[in-house]
Amino acid sequence: MKIYDWPTGPYPARVRIALAEKNLQSRVQFVSVNLWKGERKRPDFVAKKNYSGTLPVLELDDGTFIAECTAITEYLDALDGAPTLTGGTPREKGLIHMMSKRAELELLDAISVYFHHATPGLGPDVEIYQNAEWGFRQRDKALRGMHYFNAILERQPFVAGEVFSMADITVIGGLIFAGLVNLPVPAECEALQAWYARMQERSSVKNRVTMSESTEACV
Amino acid sequence: MKIYDWPTGPYPARVRIALAEKNLQSRVQFVSVNLWKGERKRPDFVAKKNYSGTLPVLELDDGTFIAECTAITEYLDALDGAPTLTGGTPREKGLIHMMSKRAELELLDAISVYFHHATPGLGPDVEIYQNAEWGFRQRDKALRGMHYFNAILERQPFVAGEVFSMADITVIGGLIFAGLVNLPVPAECEALQAWYARMQERSSVKNRVTMSESTEACV
Repeated sequence: MKIYDWPTGPYPARVRIALAEKNLQSRVQFVSVNLWKGERKRPDFVAKKNYSGTLPVLELDDGTFIAECTAITEYLDALDGAPTLTGGTPREKGLIHMMSKRAELELLDAISVYFHHATPGLGPDVEIYQNAEWGFRQRDKALRGMHYFNAILERQPFVAGEVFSMADITVIGGLIFAGLVNLPVPAECEALQAWYARMQERSSVKNRVTMSESTEACV
Repeated sequence: MKIYDWPTGPYPARVRIALAEKNLQSRVQFVSVNLWKGERKRPDFVAKKNYSGTLPVLELDDGTFIAECTAITEYLDALDGAPTLTGGTPREKGLIHMMSKRAELELLDAISVYFHHATPGLGPDVEIYQNAEWGFRQRDKALRGMHYFNAILERQPFVAGEVFSMADITVIGGLIFAGLVNLPVPAECEALQAWYARMQERSSVKNRVTMSESTEACV
């Protein structure tokens, strides 16, 4: 398998963490797609690998491309027949998918919109359209989202309940992005801060950027 | 189980179609949440049922609330142990989740933003903030999305491949919403139009609005 991504990206982090949690790193070759040059938006990448022009993208050995972090995580989690990130029972699946989607809507995707629309983002060559007002609204939404997840983590150890799951990974992605755009977790969100400190001790999270030692460039 | 929704809503349609495809309608009681009065945004609904303030929401018999269409579909599809909407193999799961998410990003959610931001939407009492420029950008994105899904359906019978899946349901949701906001499928998108005509012949799609004959109001 190949993963097209950019080592420090918050969305790529989600798949890198999932890979490490599943212990599948050795089965993957990383291909670097330069985020700062907007390579993921180029016509060839969009036409062949991912219509939405986002990273990461998984390429299977048969040439199938799978984009979107949740979809890639579903693929990886089902690979060995023992899902550990997306739940086993119907209730677990439902709750994990709900909380992961909520972490996108209320945190990660909101911060992404803030970055691309209300800050210089990836620079004028890549950010060819910006809507700053929308970006600032999304920043405020993300700050409210941090309080929401803090309240969740005051009453349970992980985002979707008693065990680590894809939902934790999505919130981690959100806080990685928050760190990159200098949007710190508010001091009063102590449970969220304590959870994030615990998450950063996991080797899957700690080693995510250096996971791909032998990368090749995506031409 | 209970489903909190609004019978004609495009997102509620996704879960109603999934329920009918799984033949689970008889196990569900529908509770009507008035979309036009913004009941889904009220503090009590947001605090107890769905932080994001969207419909539909599934309530399990143990009192657990599951929001987000994909999460609810995952729950329902796993209920009888024979998933028919979200795929069996890792590759099927990955492709179905990718195409369903893409249908949200490039079609359904884009039309929703257009409706709520660049048209009167649900009226001034509900639409307390609008960003028309963003809304029109999303409308244009949705029109491009129709061309994308048309190209997909020119080469395969269903959105994620050879069989009907959650990804078809999400595109159906998008075209239901497109119909409500008078954003017709372009005439040149013949494969998308032919597929949609076929989808509307399915009883799950045809009978979705009248599924809930005995509703109760959500106070």
